Amino acid sequence: MGLAGAGLLSGLSGAAEVDAELADPALLTAMLDVERALAGAGADCGVLPAEAAEAIAERCRPDRFDLAALAGAADAAGNPVVPLVRQLTSAVPAAARPWVHHGATSQDVLDTALVLVATRAGDPLLRRLDTAIGAAAGLAERYRDTVLLARTLGQAAAPTTFGLKAAGWLLGLLDARTRLAAAQSALPAQLGGAVGTLAALGPAGPEVADRFAARLGLAAPPLPWHTRRQPLLDLAGALGSLLAATGKVGLDVGLLAQTEVAEVAEGGGPGRGGSSAMPHKRNPVDSVLLGAAARRGPHLVATLFTAAVHEHERATGGWHAEWEPLLDLLRLAGGATSRTARLLSRLDVRPQRMRENLDALGGRVLAEAVAARLAPALGRADAHDAVARAVTAPDFRAGLLADPAVREHLSEQELDRALDPANWLGSAATFVDRALGEYRASGAYRNSEEAP
Amino acid sequence: MGLAGAGLLSGLSGAAEVDAELADPALLTAMLDVERALAGAGADCGVLPAEAAEAIAERCRPDRFDLAALAGAADAAGNPVVPLVRQLTSAVPAAARPWVHHGATSQDVLDTALVLVATRAGDPLLRRLDTAIGAAAGLAERYRDTVLLARTLGQAAAPTTFGLKAAGWLLGLLDARTRLAAAQSALPAQLGGAVGTLAALGPAGPEVADRFAARLGLAAPPLPWHTRRQPLLDLAGALGSLLAATGKVGLDVGLLAQTEVAEVAEGGGPGRGGSSAMPHKRNPVDSVLLGAAARRGPHLVATLFTAAVHEHERATGGWHAEWEPLLDLLRLAGGATSRTARLLSRLDVRPQRMRENLDALGGRVLAEAVAARLAPALGRADAHDAVARAVTAPDFRAGLLADPAVREHLSEQELDRALDPANWLGSAATFVDRALGEYRASGAYRNSEEAP
Amino acid sequence: MGLAGAGLLSGLSGAAEVDAELADPALLTAMLDVERALAGAGADCGVLPAEAAEAIAERCRPDRFDLAALAGAADAAGNPVVPLVRQLTSAVPAAARPWVHHGATSQDVLDTALVLVATRAGDPLLRRLDTAIGAAAGLAERYRDTVLLARTLGQAAAPTTFGLKAAGWLLGLLDARTRLAAAQSALPAQLGGAVGTLAALGPAGPEVADRFAARLGLAAPPLPWHTRRQPLLDLAGALGSLLAATGKVGLDVGLLAQTEVAEVAEGGGPGRGGSSAMPHKRNPVDSVLLGAAARRGPHLVATLFTAAVHEHERATGGWHAEWEPLLDLLRLAGGATSRTARLLSRLDVRPQRMRENLDALGGRVLAEAVAARLAPALGRADAHDAVARAVTAPDFRAGLLADPAVREHLSEQELDRALDPANWLGSAATFVDRALGEYRASGAYRNSEEAP
Amino acid sequence: MGLAGAGLLSGLSGAAEVDAELADPALLTAMLDVERALAGAGADCGVLPAEAAEAIAERCRPDRFDLAALAGAADAAGNPVVPLVRQLTSAVPAAARPWVHHGATSQDVLDTALVLVATRAGDPLLRRLDTAIGAAAGLAERYRDTVLLARTLGQAAAPTTFGLKAAGWLLGLLDARTRLAAAQSALPAQLGGAVGTLAALGPAGPEVADRFAARLGLAAPPLPWHTRRQPLLDLAGALGSLLAATGKVGLDVGLLAQTEVAEVAEGGGPGRGGSSAMPHKRNPVDSVLLGAAARRGPHLVATLFTAAVHEHERATGGWHAEWEPLLDLLRLAGGATSRTARLLSRLDVRPQRMRENLDALGGRVLAEAVAARLAPALGRADAHDAVARAVTAPDFRAGLLADPAVREHLSEQELDRALDPANWLGSAATFVDRALGEYRASGAYRNSEEAP
Repeated sequence: MGLAGAGLLSGLSGAAEVDAELADPALLTAMLDVERALAGAGADCGVLPAEAAEAIAERCRPDRFDLAALAGAADAAGNPVVPLVRQLTSAVPAAARPWVHHGATSQDVLDTALVLVATRAGDPLLRRLDTAIGAAAGLAERYRDTVLLARTLGQAAAPTTFGLKAAGWLLGLLDARTRLAAAQSALPAQLGGAVGTLAALGPAGPEVADRFAARLGLAAPPLPWHTRRQPLLDLAGALGSLLAATGKVGLDVGLLAQTEVAEVAEGGGPGRGGSSAMPHKRNPVDSVLLGAAARRGPHLVATLFTAAVHEHERATGGWHAEWEPLLDLLRLAGGATSRTARLLSRLDVRPQRMRENLDALGGRVLAEAVAARLAPALGRADAHDAVARAVTAPDFRAGLLADPAVREHLSEQELDRALDPANWLGSAATFVDRALGEYRASGAYRNSEEAP
Repeated sequence: MGLAGAGLLSGLSGAAEVDAELADPALLTAMLDVERALAGAGADCGVLPAEAAEAIAERCRPDRFDLAALAGAADAAGNPVVPLVRQLTSAVPAAARPWVHHGATSQDVLDTALVLVATRAGDPLLRRLDTAIGAAAGLAERYRDTVLLARTLGQAAAPTTFGLKAAGWLLGLLDARTRLAAAQSALPAQLGGAVGTLAALGPAGPEVADRFAARLGLAAPPLPWHTRRQPLLDLAGALGSLLAATGKVGLDVGLLAQTEVAEVAEGGGPGRGGSSAMPHKRNPVDSVLLGAAARRGPHLVATLFTAAVHEHERATGGWHAEWEPLLDLLRLAGGATSRTARLLSRLDVRPQRMRENLDALGGRVLAEAVAARLAPALGRADAHDAVARAVTAPDFRAGLLADPAVREHLSEQELDRALDPANWLGSAATFVDRALGEYRASGAYRNSEEAP
Repeated sequence: MGLAGAGLLSGLSGAAEVDAELADPALLTAMLDVERALAGAGADCGVLPAEAAEAIAERCRPDRFDLAALAGAADAAGNPVVPLVRQLTSAVPAAARPWVHHGATSQDVLDTALVLVATRAGDPLLRRLDTAIGAAAGLAERYRDTVLLARTLGQAAAPTTFGLKAAGWLLGLLDARTRLAAAQSALPAQLGGAVGTLAALGPAGPEVADRFAARLGLAAPPLPWHTRRQPLLDLAGALGSLLAATGKVGLDVGLLAQTEVAEVAEGGGPGRGGSSAMPHKRNPVDSVLLGAAARRGPHLVATLFTAAVHEHERATGGWHAEWEPLLDLLRLAGGATSRTARLLSRLDVRPQRMRENLDALGGRVLAEAVAARLAPALGRADAHDAVARAVTAPDFRAGLLADPAVREHLSEQELDRALDPANWLGSAATFVDRALGEYRASGAYRNSEEAP
Repeated sequence: MGLAGAGLLSGLSGAAEVDAELADPALLTAMLDVERALAGAGADCGVLPAEAAEAIAERCRPDRFDLAALAGAADAAGNPVVPLVRQLTSAVPAAARPWVHHGATSQDVLDTALVLVATRAGDPLLRRLDTAIGAAAGLAERYRDTVLLARTLGQAAAPTTFGLKAAGWLLGLLDARTRLAAAQSALPAQLGGAVGTLAALGPAGPEVADRFAARLGLAAPPLPWHTRRQPLLDLAGALGSLLAATGKVGLDVGLLAQTEVAEVAEGGGPGRGGSSAMPHKRNPVDSVLLGAAARRGPHLVATLFTAAVHEHERATGGWHAEWEPLLDLLRLAGGATSRTARLLSRLDVRPQRMRENLDALGGRVLAEAVAARLAPALGRADAHDAVARAVTAPDFRAGLLADPAVREHLSEQELDRALDPANWLGSAATFVDRALGEYRASGAYRNSEEAP
C-alpha cells in the first residue's frame, strides 16, 4: 500500500505516494513549470522573443537549483519566489534576462505552483479514493442482506444490514469524490501581475493569461484571483468532506471492532496493530489514524476560511497563512484515503458474530416491529406501552406472550415472524441497490482498480 | 433596511428579516409542517387512512402548541421532537393517533425541519445578497475607469481602478451566491425511520419518502442521510464563503475609510457610527460588523465539519452539535449580507481623493511602468536597479531625469507618459467588463431589485 | 436539576440557572451597574459632584429601560452602549447629565458588563461544577477497588478499577475548576476612556479606575486592556478545558452504557431518554449532550483567540466578534456542567457486569501479567512470544498450561494468581487515593453540597 | 537572527533555532532519553538490575538508529515507539532485554518525549521572547512621551503616545510569557504503563514514576495523564496567547507602516522586503508573517482542544491528533517570536511623521478635549453638540471660535491649550511607567539580553 512515510510522526498522517507530490522538490518543480509556462505564453502572444522563452524554459530544471539556499533566502522576501527568480535570471543568457518572470508577481507563481501541486497530488489521491470506494461498494454488495444490529446513540436499536452500513460509507466517499474532482478540475492558474491588472503585459494580458493556463493544463479564470480565494475554499471543503467520510469509516470500524462487539476486525498483516505492552492486543490502527485525521481536518478547513479575507490587492498575512495548511490538508487526505483503501480492502467481516449479537438481545430490538404490528389494533400509544412493559421483563418474547392484549391480536407464530430481524429490514436492500447504482454511474467505477 | 434585531447583541450580528425565519416559532412551524407532510405522504401511498392524515394535518398548527412547555420537556428526551409528537398525538382524534409520526424518528423530523428553516431563511438572505451584488455591480460599472492606488501588503503598489476593486467584491459575492443557491436547492428531506431502513413503512418506504420530499418542496435523497451530513457541509461551506466575501468588502471599505486614506466613507444616515466619547468620529460600523462576522464564520463552518462524523446509525453528540451552529451561521450570513447590501448601496466614493492619494506619491508607484519601459533597452535587472535608485531620491521623477542611463532611452515626455497612472492600468477595464458579464449571466441579475 | 431551558434547542445546550445570568436582562443590569459604579467612582475621587453620582445611580435601574428599543437603536452605533447612554442621560436631572458616562467609552461599559455577567454566571456554574466534582469523588471512593476492564484504542487491555476511571474524571473536572476559578477572579474591570489614556478624567484617571473596579468587586488592571484580551483568553481556555473534562465523562459513560458493554446506565427518571420510534430504548441523553458540547467548545475557544488580535487602540471587528461566542461558551459550560452533575449523581453503576465482561475474556487481558511473570525467566521477548501464542488459542489458560516453556516456570496455581485481575491492578488504589487527596485539598470540597 | 529555515515554506513560519528542537532527530533523541530514564528509574527503585539499566542507557544513542527505518516501521504499529523498542531491545545484551521499556506503554514514551521536545524548544523560544520583550520595553521607555494619533475602528480618535502603544505590546508579550513559562515548567512526565495502573512495576510503580520524572527534570504528576490532557491544553493556550500577542505587534506595525501613515517602517537590511515586480516597494515582511501566524494559531489551539477528549484508558484517534499540531504550534510560536524580536529591535520609528499626521487633522481629534472643557459649563450634551457642529466646519478651530456658546466659556488661549495634543494625554505616561514596572519585575527582565 506504500503508506510508509518519511517522518516519525508525519508518516502516520500522510501516505508516501501523495506526500511526494507535496514536498519541497515537487513545489520547486511546479514553480519552475510556472516560470516556463509564463515565458512560453508570452512568446505565444508575441510579448517576448521565442528564443528568450526557450532559453528560460531550458533553465527551468529543478536539479539546477539549491533548495536549501532558496529556503534560506526566502526569509528576506517573505516568499521563495523572489530568490528563485533571482537565481533563474542569473542562470539564463543575458538576452533572456529581461523576460524572466515577465509580467508576473510572486503570488502568481506561488499560487499557480500550489495549484499544480494540488492537482498532481490529486492524482494518486483520487486513485486511492477509487480503491476505497470500490472496496466499500464490494462490501455493500457482498453483505447486502447480512443482518446487523443498528445502533443509535450507542444503544441497540433495530436490525439493519451490514450492506446498508457499507452503502453509507460508499455514498459518503462518493460525495467527497464528486466535490474533490470538481474542485480539482476547477483550480485556476493565477496571473495578474503586480496588482491584478496585468499592466506589464500591455494589451496582450488576458491572452497571455489564457495561454499560460492552457500550457499548464489548468482552468483559466475570468479575472486574477489574488484576493478571491474561492477556488481554495472549494478545495478545502472537498478535502474536509473527504476526511469526514473517511473518519466515519474509521469510527464505525473502531466501534464494531471493540472487543465486546467484535463484528469486524482490521485485516492487517503480521505485526500490524501490535502493542508495546500487551501481547494479546490487536489494535485497529488504521481506524484510529482515520479518527485522528478526522479530528484535525475541520481546523485546517477553518484555517483556509479564516485566511481567505485578503486586504486590498494583496493580503497582509492571509495569503501566507494558506500555504502550509493547504498542503497539510492534502497530506492528511492522502493518508486517510490510503488508509481507508487498505482498511476496507482487507476488512475482516464476521456475519456470524453480527447475528449472535442481535440474537443475544432476545428480540428487544424488534420492539418497534412488534409495536407496529400491534398499532393498528391497539392504537399506536397502547401498542407502544404494551411493548414497553414487555421490554422490561426478563424475557421479552415471554413477556409479550403473557400479555392478553398482545395475545388477542398476535399469534405465537405471528409474534415469531415479527421477532425475526430479517423481516424488519424495510428498504435496506433497495437502499443498498440505489447506492450501488450511484457508484456504477460514477467516475470512481470507471476508474476502479484493484487495491495494490 | 430592517436590520434592527431583537437582542442587545444578536441584533448586531443578525438581521431581523432572516432572524425571524430562524427563531423558535419558525422551527416549530417547520416541525409541524414535517409531521403534516409525513402523514400526507403516508396517505398518498396508502400506508395510512386519508382521514387520519387530514385530522393530523389540521392539528399541525403552531398556535396550538406551547413553545415554553415543549422546550422544557425536550430535556428529558434530548430533543424537542419527542414532546411535540406526544402533544400532537394527544391533540388528534383517537382514530388518528396510531398514525401520528408514523414511520419516522425524531431525527427525521428535526433534520427536515432544519432544512425547511434553512430554505425559508434562504429566501430573504438571497434577496439581500442580490441587492448587495447589484450594488457591487453598480460600483464596478460606475467607477470602471476611476484610477485608484492599489495596495499590496499594505504598501502603495501601482495604479488600478476602483471599478476593478468593486468587480472583485462582485465576483466574490457571485461565487458565494452560486454555491449558496446550489447548496440550498440540494437540501434533501430526511426520512429514514428508526435506523434508516424505513422498516415501519414496509415496502412503501421509498415511495413515501419521495412523496414526503415532494410535499415539502425539498430534494429527495437516494438514501436517508442520518449519518452522511454532506448536504449540511455544502451549506456550511457556502455560508462560510459568503461570510468571507462580505468580510472582504468590509475589510477593504474599512481600510479605504481610514482617516489617512479617506477614499470612501460609509453612507450611513443621521446618528450612524456615532461614538459615545468622541463627537468628531464617524465609525465605519457596517464594515466593522462585517469584520466581526468574518472572524466567526470559519469556526462555525469547522463546527459543522467536526460534528459531521456520526457513529453507527445515529450519532452520540455530533448530530446535536449541528443545530445551533447551523442556525448561527445562517443568522450571521443574514446579518452580513444585509449589512453589505446597505454598505454598498450607500457607499460614499471619493474619486478625487483617490487621485490625490495617488498623485501624492510622486510617481513612485509607476516604478514598474518605468522599469518596464526601460527593460528592453537596459535589461530587466539594470532597469529595475535604475528605477530603484531613483525611488530613494527625494523626487522620483527628478531622480529619473538625472540618471543618464534613463535619459538615454526615455525622453521627458515619454517619462511623463510612463508616470501617468491612466496609462498603466493594463487590463483593468477588460476585467471589469468580464466581471459584469458574469453578473449579467447570473441569477442575481435576473432577480435584481433596488435596495430597500 | 433545573435544566429546562427557554428555547427548543438552546435548552438542550444550556441550563436555565446559568442562562438567566447571560440573557439580555442580565446584560442590561450589568451595563447599568457599570454606569453607576463609574459615576460613583468619579464622585469618590472628586471628579464629579456626589449629587450627580447619586442621581445617576438612582436611574440605573433596568426596569426603566426598554430592551427592544435599545436593541433596535444599537444597530446605528454598532453597540448597545451608545443608545443606553443616550437614554440614561435623558433620564437624569439636567444637572447630572454632563456626568453620565463621564470619562468612559462604549467599550469600557460593555467589556466591564460582560466581565460582570461572566462573573455572575460563574457562581451557579461553579456550584454545579462542585456538585459534579463531589459526585465524581463519591464514585472514585465507592468503587475504589471495583475491578473494571480497561480499554485502549477500543480494545480490551488489562484490568483497572472503576474507581480509577472516576478518579480520572474527578481530576479532569478539578483541573478545569482551578483554571476557571482563577480566570474568573482575575477578570478585570475595564476603564480607559476613548483611547486608553483616561484623558477625560485628568490626573484622577488611575484612581478612578481603581475605585471603579473596587465598587464592582472586580480586579483592577495595571492598564486598560482594550486591545489586550488575555483575560478573555484565560477564561475561554478554562471554559474549553471544562467542556473537554465534561466531554470525557460523557464519552466514557456513553461507551460504558453501550448495549454490549452495559457496565453503567444513566440514572434518569421516568421518561428520560425515551425514543420517539423505539419503545425498548433508553438513550444516554446526558452523555450525548455532553458530547455535543465537547464538539462545539474548541471552536468557540478558537473564535476568541481569532478575535483577540485588535487593531491600534480599538479593534475593527475583533472586539465585536467576542461578545456572542463568549456568552455561548459560558452557556455551553453551564449546560455541560449541570448535565455532568446530574449524570454523575445518578449514575447506575453495575460492578457485577464489569466483572462478567472481564471474565468473559478468559484471562487474555492478563497476558501482560503472565508475560511479566515469565519475563525474568524467559526474557521479555520470549515471554511476550509465549503469551502471544497462547492468546490465539481457543482457551488462553489452557494454551499457557500446554506450553512447556511456560509450565517450566509457572505452576498452575501461580498461573491462576497471575490470571486474577485483582492481582494486576498495580497502583490503581494509590492513584485513587491521591486523586481524592487532591479533591479534599480543593475549593470544590469546601464548597461541596448535595446535588439538588 | 538565524531565522533561515530548512523548507521553502516552513522556513517562513518557523525559525531555525527552535525548529531544530522539534525535528525528527530531536524527537528520536528525546524518546531515547525517555527509555534511558525509565531504565534508570527502575534501577533506582530496585525493579531491575543496575547493569541492565546501564547497558540500556549506553545503547540509547540516536546515532545508532535509522530514522527512515523507524518511520517506515511506525505505520504497522500506529506509532514510532513500537519499532524503536524493538530495535533498542535487539541492540542491548541478552541479559538486559527483558528490561527494555519495562513497565511502560508506547504512550508513556511518546508523551514524555513530546514534553521533553516542548521543553527543549522552549529554551530558545523564551530567549527570543525575552529579546522581543526587551525591545518592546525599550520602545515604551524611549517613546514614553512621543505623541501619536490613536485610532479606533480605523478612524482618527484622540492623541496617545507611541510609548503607550509599545507598552501595550510589552504587556501582551509579558502576559504570554508568564503563561508559557508556567505551562512549560508544569509539563509532567508520563508513566502509567499499559492502562495507567503501572501494574507491571508492582508496588514500586509510583516511586519509579517519581524517579523517572526527576531524572528527566520534569514535573511528576499525581496520576498518569494518558487521557487527561490539561497540561497540553495549558501549553496550547499559552502558545496561542503568544501568537495573538505577536500578531498584535505585526498588525499594528503593518498598519502604521502603510504608505499613507508611514509612522514606522520595518528596519530590515539590504534586500529585505523586496518585491519581484515593483522596485519601489519595501514590504513589511515580518509583520505580514506575524499576521499569517496569528491567523493559524487559533485553529491549532482548537485542534488540541478537540483532540483532548479521550476514550476510556487510551484514545482512539485523539491522542494521535495531538502530535503534529502541538509541534506546529511550537514551530509557529518560535517563528513568530523570533520575527517579533527582529522587528521590534530594528523598528524604524518616526516621531516627526507621527506629529505631522496628528497636526494634519486640524485639532478635530481633540474634540473630546474641547467638549470636556466645555461640559461643566454647557452640560455634556450641549458641549458635545457644539463641538460636533464645529467638527463639520472646514476649519475646526475657526468653527469653534465662531460659536458664541463656545466663546462665552473659552478664550482663544484656552482653546489652543485644549487643542494641544500634549495636554490631552491623560494617564498615558503613568500607564507606560506601570508597564515598565511590570517588565522590571518579570523574568524577562532578569534574562534580558541583546538581540543577537
